[in-house]
Amino acid sequence: MMDAEKPLRVALIGHGFMGAAHSQAWRVAPRFFDLALQPRMALLVGRDADRTSAAARKWGWEETSTDWEEAVRREDIDVVDIVTPGASHAEIALAALAAGKHVLCEKPLANTVEEAQAMADAAARAVSGGARAMVGFTYRRLPASVHARNLVAEGAIGDVRQVRAAYLQDWLVDADAPLSWRLEQDQAGSGVLGDLGAHIIDLAQYVTGARLGEVAGTLETVVESRPLPASSGADGGLGGQRGTGGERGAVTVDDVALFTGRFGNGVLGTFEASRMATGRKNALRLEVYGSRGALAFDLEELNFLDFYDYTAPADRQGFTRIMVTEPVHPYVDAWWPAGHSLGYEHGFVHQVRDFVDAIASGSQPSPSFADGLQVQQVLDAVTRSSGKSSAWTPVQ
Amino acid sequence: MMDAEKPLRVALIGHGFMGAAHSQAWRVAPRFFDLALQPRMALLVGRDADRTSAAARKWGWEETSTDWEEAVRREDIDVVDIVTPGASHAEIALAALAAGKHVLCEKPLANTVEEAQAMADAAARAVSGGARAMVGFTYRRLPASVHARNLVAEGAIGDVRQVRAAYLQDWLVDADAPLSWRLEQDQAGSGVLGDLGAHIIDLAQYVTGARLGEVAGTLETVVESRPLPASSGADGGLGGQRGTGGERGAVTVDDVALFTGRFGNGVLGTFEASRMATGRKNALRLEVYGSRGALAFDLEELNFLDFYDYTAPADRQGFTRIMVTEPVHPYVDAWWPAGHSLGYEHGFVHQVRDFVDAIASGSQPSPSFADGLQVQQVLDAVTRSSGKSSAWTPVQ
Amino acid sequence: MMDAEKPLRVALIGHGFMGAAHSQAWRVAPRFFDLALQPRMALLVGRDADRTSAAARKWGWEETSTDWEEAVRREDIDVVDIVTPGASHAEIALAALAAGKHVLCEKPLANTVEEAQAMADAAARAVSGGARAMVGFTYRRLPASVHARNLVAEGAIGDVRQVRAAYLQDWLVDADAPLSWRLEQDQAGSGVLGDLGAHIIDLAQYVTGARLGEVAGTLETVVESRPLPASSGADGGLGGQRGTGGERGAVTVDDVALFTGRFGNGVLGTFEASRMATGRKNALRLEVYGSRGALAFDLEELNFLDFYDYTAPADRQGFTRIMVTEPVHPYVDAWWPAGHSLGYEHGFVHQVRDFVDAIASGSQPSPSFADGLQVQQVLDAVTRSSGKSSAWTPVQ
Amino acid sequence: MMDAEKPLRVALIGHGFMGAAHSQAWRVAPRFFDLALQPRMALLVGRDADRTSAAARKWGWEETSTDWEEAVRREDIDVVDIVTPGASHAEIALAALAAGKHVLCEKPLANTVEEAQAMADAAARAVSGGARAMVGFTYRRLPASVHARNLVAEGAIGDVRQVRAAYLQDWLVDADAPLSWRLEQDQAGSGVLGDLGAHIIDLAQYVTGARLGEVAGTLETVVESRPLPASSGADGGLGGQRGTGGERGAVTVDDVALFTGRFGNGVLGTFEASRMATGRKNALRLEVYGSRGALAFDLEELNFLDFYDYTAPADRQGFTRIMVTEPVHPYVDAWWPAGHSLGYEHGFVHQVRDFVDAIASGSQPSPSFADGLQVQQVLDAVTRSSGKSSAWTPVQ
Repeated sequence: MMDAEKPLRVALIGHGFMGAAHSQAWRVAPRFFDLALQPRMALLVGRDADRTSAAARKWGWEETSTDWEEAVRREDIDVVDIVTPGASHAEIALAALAAGKHVLCEKPLANTVEEAQAMADAAARAVSGGARAMVGFTYRRLPASVHARNLVAEGAIGDVRQVRAAYLQDWLVDADAPLSWRLEQDQAGSGVLGDLGAHIIDLAQYVTGARLGEVAGTLETVVESRPLPASSGADGGLGGQRGTGGERGAVTVDDVALFTGRFGNGVLGTFEASRMATGRKNALRLEVYGSRGALAFDLEELNFLDFYDYTAPADRQGFTRIMVTEPVHPYVDAWWPAGHSLGYEHGFVHQVRDFVDAIASGSQPSPSFADGLQVQQVLDAVTRSSGKSSAWTPVQ
Repeated sequence: MMDAEKPLRVALIGHGFMGAAHSQAWRVAPRFFDLALQPRMALLVGRDADRTSAAARKWGWEETSTDWEEAVRREDIDVVDIVTPGASHAEIALAALAAGKHVLCEKPLANTVEEAQAMADAAARAVSGGARAMVGFTYRRLPASVHARNLVAEGAIGDVRQVRAAYLQDWLVDADAPLSWRLEQDQAGSGVLGDLGAHIIDLAQYVTGARLGEVAGTLETVVESRPLPASSGADGGLGGQRGTGGERGAVTVDDVALFTGRFGNGVLGTFEASRMATGRKNALRLEVYGSRGALAFDLEELNFLDFYDYTAPADRQGFTRIMVTEPVHPYVDAWWPAGHSLGYEHGFVHQVRDFVDAIASGSQPSPSFADGLQVQQVLDAVTRSSGKSSAWTPVQ
Repeated sequence: MMDAEKPLRVALIGHGFMGAAHSQAWRVAPRFFDLALQPRMALLVGRDADRTSAAARKWGWEETSTDWEEAVRREDIDVVDIVTPGASHAEIALAALAAGKHVLCEKPLANTVEEAQAMADAAARAVSGGARAMVGFTYRRLPASVHARNLVAEGAIGDVRQVRAAYLQDWLVDADAPLSWRLEQDQAGSGVLGDLGAHIIDLAQYVTGARLGEVAGTLETVVESRPLPASSGADGGLGGQRGTGGERGAVTVDDVALFTGRFGNGVLGTFEASRMATGRKNALRLEVYGSRGALAFDLEELNFLDFYDYTAPADRQGFTRIMVTEPVHPYVDAWWPAGHSLGYEHGFVHQVRDFVDAIASGSQPSPSFADGLQVQQVLDAVTRSSGKSSAWTPVQ
Repeated sequence: MMDAEKPLRVALIGHGFMGAAHSQAWRVAPRFFDLALQPRMALLVGRDADRTSAAARKWGWEETSTDWEEAVRREDIDVVDIVTPGASHAEIALAALAAGKHVLCEKPLANTVEEAQAMADAAARAVSGGARAMVGFTYRRLPASVHARNLVAEGAIGDVRQVRAAYLQDWLVDADAPLSWRLEQDQAGSGVLGDLGAHIIDLAQYVTGARLGEVAGTLETVVESRPLPASSGADGGLGGQRGTGGERGAVTVDDVALFTGRFGNGVLGTFEASRMATGRKNALRLEVYGSRGALAFDLEELNFLDFYDYTAPADRQGFTRIMVTEPVHPYVDAWWPAGHSLGYEHGFVHQVRDFVDAIASGSQPSPSFADGLQVQQVLDAVTRSSGKSSAWTPVQ
């Protein structure tokens, strides 16, 4: 609410697609939720001054900078929100935490376990100074996800027996789509495993309340070379364009990642991440089967959660398609009347709500950097398993 | 079961598409259900001797005839099963009932109320002589339909408040599909109203247990002329073929029929029948909304019934997609293990089961000819309403 | 974009559910779309000073007033956005147009044809002074709706043959839900017909590009009395509460509205609006069948549009479930990457975009007040038809 | 057709659930398809004389025997159809082939690779004598499966890139469902891998036209002990019944089987078979992603095939839900008019059609015993991989 006494000054580092999503969240959250602290969109940081200024005007940030250290140095900044590529997460987050800032960091937490470990350690240390850190797995913040977790926790599906998780997209189906930095190992750190795989690891663990203890998997690169993009420089844009006979470069990250995981409680789950699943645009699917019921979710239809109650009368059993848009569902009473759909961006708004609430109450926001580290450890174990013929490999 | 003491000798009159469906039903029913009387496929009657013989060989009928009166005259025939066009239903059924035969007659019962009235009267009279008559609304015999009716009867959806029924097909979408006898009033008696409309009237009444008391509707002919088919005669097949510049003839029946009905208990329902619904192949849809729940069914997915329980916990409400293929569901335990789909023809098999059971036990099979008459009266009221500007018109 | 030279100062009259939706739209639209004029959320008007101030703080309006005439009088106000109950639309809009303001008015345009006519006349007159008026049928602004209209206009489904439209909700299923002003004729003007029926009339006309010329229909009140709500006054809240034996009052508006319409081009459509459709939360469904294809849409799954191409190879025909979230789809390139869902509120954002664009370019925004009047005339014709036994009744 | 000159005398060995399905197929196939040879249901063989006689009467077999060797010895028997448990497949099939009989054998072909190899060798030898052998993977015979294979073969989805196959059932969810011979290794040979896994291996290979070359997988037993069933003997049925405090025995086969496979062309696929997937009754799902499109199928909705055309106009792309019930679709023209659903048993009818056609024309029916052997080799490789920490293991 606007009359909350205390402002919370935010600096956003980065302004790509995620920058837009986070900006929208910071702007919208206080309009629908009563926040104990009032976010102010204080500073936007980007590398290019002109583009950063344009983004700040468009999204409503008060000031801009091309130096992320300014956000850390400035005493009036309370929160550093990091949406840069993964390679810079650790450096920025460590500096911000050292300076006593609250930190929200996009997923995956870092490009390596080592970086993630350092970040988790720093976050643990920073608590004594009052700073809080959270990693941005926003799919946890959808009404369907929270409702799914609640149903599992309430015992509505009994003991979890089997998990199926997949995140399928198709943006690399065209073998002549250009090579970008996201497809080069030294820059991106990882391919579809870190990008989409991280989401399903986190969501499956969040919903079931269990953690993966070992994995066995395979990483694959289906399209192994792609046209080099035209340089933006002196060649006048002649080189590397599709259809112009340009050279091709090697794709050095995975575009399909498949693994089986065993949770600490012994339950098996399958995990599949793909950028080659033609026709699937954003199909994050989670199915959880239990001794008394089951749950199924698909991000392409994010306002629904399917629930099977194995204890219902036999002739009335079936998957119940819950439209998760009623006031009784998580987050929904702040929005529209029953039956009115939410969209992708609402997860980010809810993330701001939960993050600000945790800061205001002095409690640990979830998922913590330690949670982000654990996901990183799973990713690492999958990579190692893939390197040794898919053999079962412990996490950590 | 094959060792049932008494056979039940059946004569089938007609051998088109419905003849195939009925033949399959007579052949298959005793293999899956334990019938108290053992059907024998004794006599197939058709107008053309060669085609009738071919059909009898293919479908397994013992004898053939080109004279339906032979089926009525023969003392060894127990059942007359009528699948001819509607115009001949009354004549055959009246003769068969007068001769003491059990009669199964395809829907709609007749082409006019008068004929249907005579048939219902004859069926009532025939009971004293031990003969039973039934009209063939087979969609009542699907597991989903019976389960829906049971749920309504048990109060699972409370008081019925609103009904939505539609039967959508698209086989007349092509404006150059040829004119056939089915599209001429003097031969077919009715268009989509009698063909598809009759089904949704019967099914809606069956599931809700209520009867339509008045209707307000509109009959429409969207494509008003069609190419005359090539004659099979002296013109060598030159005339009327598509694309050959042949003449067109008038379509004299409706291809879209829309009406609102009020059931005797005051509930309103909408009814839509169309042969112009591009892309809908066999979409008989029924939705029933009640004070405590709802039901929805679509014939294109006939192994499913959607059920909404308004008394369930608020956060778990939704349409439950019941896969009506469990042993607890109607008819299913005679077939395959749980989860194995049934198809269109199974309704006909179940019809034989129920008809034979009624004959064996000396009880009235349902739907009776009186039920068929009532549907005919609804069709008639719709036609009259359409003729007077869609005004509300009482049924009979 | 924030650097657009000229601001556009907006006054919002009303602050219920629609006030929240419009506020969100005014705030968000300039962040995602490049607008030629820069909206400023200048003035929020409500009857109660405290509640209006609270809403203004929450939603970010600069000033407040309890007098809507202030919005009309103030020279610095450019746009009057009306989200009050229908009874006050005409008075406010007429004054605002007379004062040269642009006007955005929620649907339905007014409670009577007479009011709507006066508003349309005033809007026509105001054009010479540069003022523009639009009525808020936001479901036109969903990517699926615009894409559907475009497909029809391109001939993708050929000639439209049949239309099916329904808007099903269930918020009045509980017969003991209290009586509110929305259920009393003298205050609300209309029941489900004006509320939900208006939406499907507009959307069906928008998508098909045709207008209803005559209608035949029935209005129904399924639950005829409801508990009187507790007064907030001296009786201490004892009266009329559910389960306390309080008195019941008469529901004087329709909760189910059913009609058949004939478009000017002769095509028939069915229209159903219900607040009694148990389990349907916001099921605005539109199906359009044409000579070469078909379209189907359901607001409960608003990111999808089903398209049937009757000219495709026969063995590959079927309804194609287009996920209308690609950059090539209407409005989508301003939002998120491919496959990321939009929600209910995005229609309002798009409405602001289109309204501001029209103002900036001096063109007529659509739907105009004349369009809103025409919808009102259809509603009126349905009401008259219902009063004369559902007979066909011309629009106007 | 009944007037085919030559009969084909069939002996069926076994009469459980599969016996019913095969009986129905032998009875129905000649009624809908014109077969060059006329099947006669000559001999039913079972271990128990009374139960075999009852089954023969019910299903319409002319004679019975309790000795399967009678079927092999009798010169008038042309076909031996084997539906016994897997442990006896090899012995019966080898004898039948040696006697020059055509053999149809249920899947999986055998319990071990060695048995399967011997059967494939025998089948190869028998060809010279005119005998033909086929293994019964009936899901290949559904219209959707054949259409899927045809679309892949025509290039409609381009080069296959990724395969996802799962077969999910829930009949073992109840941990107190009794132990049966199907859950004991020494009798059943395999658990869910051989039962459901075999189906998805065959179907994925059939549709894609590629064969698995190596696999990496895990076999799991979720419920490790179950109540011993009551003996049928002297203890009067007191022992081991659910809830009576009876003893539990060890489940010695897998109830969840998960593996990744690499096809010979390098493509990766995931395979999951489960009897623990609560709420999934018969969910055989296959998804095939290619460079120009994709296909998806679910056996619970077997009349549909989803097809994505990546070469369609960008704004019209989506999964097209093909209702595979048109006369242009495989097998369908023999059945009902467009849009009328087929069911589970139709696959068996089509199998008889194809088997008889191959016999009549002297060609090799597909899938051959060599095909069945290859599936067995895949199953064996999965088991071996599971035993060595899920490491990649070559097939054969």
